[in-house]
Amino acid sequence: MKLSTLFPKTQRQAPKDEVSHNAQALEQAGYISKLFAGVYSYLPLGWRVIKNIERIIREEVNAAGGQELFMPALHPEELYEQTGRADIDVLFHLEMANKKKLVLGQSHEEVIVPLVKKYIQSYKELPLYLYQIQTKFRNELRAKSGILRGREFIMKDLYSFHTTQEDLDAYYEYMKEVYSRIFQRVGLGNRTHLTFASGGTFSKFSHEFQTLTEAGEDTIHLCESCHIGVNDEIIKEYNRCPQCGKSTLVAQKAIEVGNIFPLKDKFSSKFGLTYTDQNGDEQPILMGCYGIGLGRVMGAIAEVHNDERGLRWPAAVAPYTAHIVSIGVDQKVLAHAEKVYAQFEQNGISSLYDDRDERAGVKLGDADLMGIPHRIVVSEKTGTHVEHTDRTTGQSTVLPVAACLKKITE
Amino acid sequence: MKLSTLFPKTQRQAPKDEVSHNAQALEQAGYISKLFAGVYSYLPLGWRVIKNIERIIREEVNAAGGQELFMPALHPEELYEQTGRADIDVLFHLEMANKKKLVLGQSHEEVIVPLVKKYIQSYKELPLYLYQIQTKFRNELRAKSGILRGREFIMKDLYSFHTTQEDLDAYYEYMKEVYSRIFQRVGLGNRTHLTFASGGTFSKFSHEFQTLTEAGEDTIHLCESCHIGVNDEIIKEYNRCPQCGKSTLVAQKAIEVGNIFPLKDKFSSKFGLTYTDQNGDEQPILMGCYGIGLGRVMGAIAEVHNDERGLRWPAAVAPYTAHIVSIGVDQKVLAHAEKVYAQFEQNGISSLYDDRDERAGVKLGDADLMGIPHRIVVSEKTGTHVEHTDRTTGQSTVLPVAACLKKITE
Repeated sequence: MKLSTLFPKTQRQAPKDEVSHNAQALEQAGYISKLFAGVYSYLPLGWRVIKNIERIIREEVNAAGGQELFMPALHPEELYEQTGRADIDVLFHLEMANKKKLVLGQSHEEVIVPLVKKYIQSYKELPLYLYQIQTKFRNELRAKSGILRGREFIMKDLYSFHTTQEDLDAYYEYMKEVYSRIFQRVGLGNRTHLTFASGGTFSKFSHEFQTLTEAGEDTIHLCESCHIGVNDEIIKEYNRCPQCGKSTLVAQKAIEVGNIFPLKDKFSSKFGLTYTDQNGDEQPILMGCYGIGLGRVMGAIAEVHNDERGLRWPAAVAPYTAHIVSIGVDQKVLAHAEKVYAQFEQNGISSLYDDRDERAGVKLGDADLMGIPHRIVVSEKTGTHVEHTDRTTGQSTVLPVAACLKKITE
Repeated sequence: MKLSTLFPKTQRQAPKDEVSHNAQALEQAGYISKLFAGVYSYLPLGWRVIKNIERIIREEVNAAGGQELFMPALHPEELYEQTGRADIDVLFHLEMANKKKLVLGQSHEEVIVPLVKKYIQSYKELPLYLYQIQTKFRNELRAKSGILRGREFIMKDLYSFHTTQEDLDAYYEYMKEVYSRIFQRVGLGNRTHLTFASGGTFSKFSHEFQTLTEAGEDTIHLCESCHIGVNDEIIKEYNRCPQCGKSTLVAQKAIEVGNIFPLKDKFSSKFGLTYTDQNGDEQPILMGCYGIGLGRVMGAIAEVHNDERGLRWPAAVAPYTAHIVSIGVDQKVLAHAEKVYAQFEQNGISSLYDDRDERAGVKLGDADLMGIPHRIVVSEKTGTHVEHTDRTTGQSTVLPVAACLKKITE
């Protein structure tokens, strides 16, 4: 992609109406644009980051037996009356032309439970793992954390269906590993902690995945011994780590990037979701649900991976792998830069090529702000070579193009 | 994918509450499931079809210079007051907790025009082509055509921004070719016709892409001479083909699968979307918009490609390429079928493997109903070979596995 045609250009200054670092950096660098508080457009660069996060989640959830489907955002309100959730304050309410009452989905239990009930009858058809990557809506009173807490946000929500508590427990434990792998792959592994949270009236605990960052709206209490987090609700009740029993806990600000819930029969009981067992008896289907907010993950990465000059994307989620910058107006340099860009593309390295007639300072500043992992400078000084700079370590090397390609693909 | 684990199984009978063929066949075969009239879940098979259609559209629109982004579904109502569209009857209205009035996007001119205005100033930054693949909402009074006309539907909407009428016209003509190529690739080429439609108050014509099918809600008048369609509005005004002038037109039922609109300054004038030209003068930016409904395309394919036994997917959009069926309970046959399935997967041919302990009639009936292009039967009769049947032509051949793989990949 040539930067001269990319929409939009970076902004000279961070937006004044944003208080969170992720929103400031992402808006200034041209990744997102605010429509109103808590509601953002993902611009081409930002959408590529979301697509990379989506791909990683999809790969891991497919490997865990997940079958992808896509459910509507418009839900009949009557389904929420059945679960007693029609009055929860984050629901958006609306009405059809024929007066039928609807709500916008903030989660999909009310849709997926009747859907599974329509098709599943026997123990032979279980367990079952269904998920989607889809937009959710929450009528939040306030929204001030950029894309960390939105009124509209893209979420992966997986629902599992089981015949026994043991089977649910085993899959629930397995999903802890799957989630750890996902957060590792997107670059949040070192700062993301499995965290004990309330299990509601139906389970002892649920679990959150909390990424440590000063921008977080939550406080978690990190156990120094087993590196597990404990959220505010649980610490009040237990006052120690539910895993190891120790009470050496350190309070830290964090952002919830995922959560998993052993729902058991909480929703299946409301809709009569049952199966017939080997003896022909009717039994309740037990459920788990597992969410990850894609925008939250992107926002958390922006909060965690940055310096005073801008963003620093982990390679797996970066919008492009290489940011090629030509310096100066010398025709030989420009021709060399064009050729380097072509070579990178031919080698399957996605590249943003800054072909603009701009000062070196502007171009290098934009490269730092946008935070693509490998910066490749082509100038009179580099001759037939290129200068490779790692955005995260800051290390620079001047080397032949072939060696640079090798360095990046290795 | 093993059919024993696929969600859901086919249904014995077509749903009684559906009148349109596409919804009946797609529901019975397990591609979609109705939540309420005009609002459907895409089940795993159906979602794979949508993803294939999406991939084809994305490839073609990217090749046409499109930059993909993702805009919100929640829109401030005040933006619609600026364009005079706050009262159009298909808008869903809702309110935030803080009383701010919102509507659900049924199109995105009100969002993308202010977005482009925020970033674009100069002729140097134009033309610009931005698109998204995103969910739209329409508060339809009635919805009875399955996924052909939904209250919630996935759409590709592209918006182009130009400095001159000539540039807009050239891109508009180019998009006619791009759209023809898309409909060709998804398997609707032979029945889809460019159709003259009203250009509103700001252009002489806009254009629809209409697929001929009895299930269509529209009537178009097909010119026997140039194979161009004319919609009802235009035929009333002109009473002949606007392209060749002839009046030998044949009325046919059709479904609109896409439309393109030369918006000119209709929306840019409302928001003051201008650019600075080479002389430093401010000029209006001219726009075009270009839509394709992905669910409509899927529904149209289902209407066009079927027989009395079920669906017949074109290869490019089929959920799987091959449908492998083992017949009988002989261990040698089952082992051979497993091996064939593994070989297909290894060769990159996506396959659905019917490993169920079911009667041959049920399995072959399901294969016909689901409509995957290549049916591969493994039975005692086929020995170490397989029987390949083309779902569309019905032609069968017994041949070695290697020859079958070659036949499919060629």
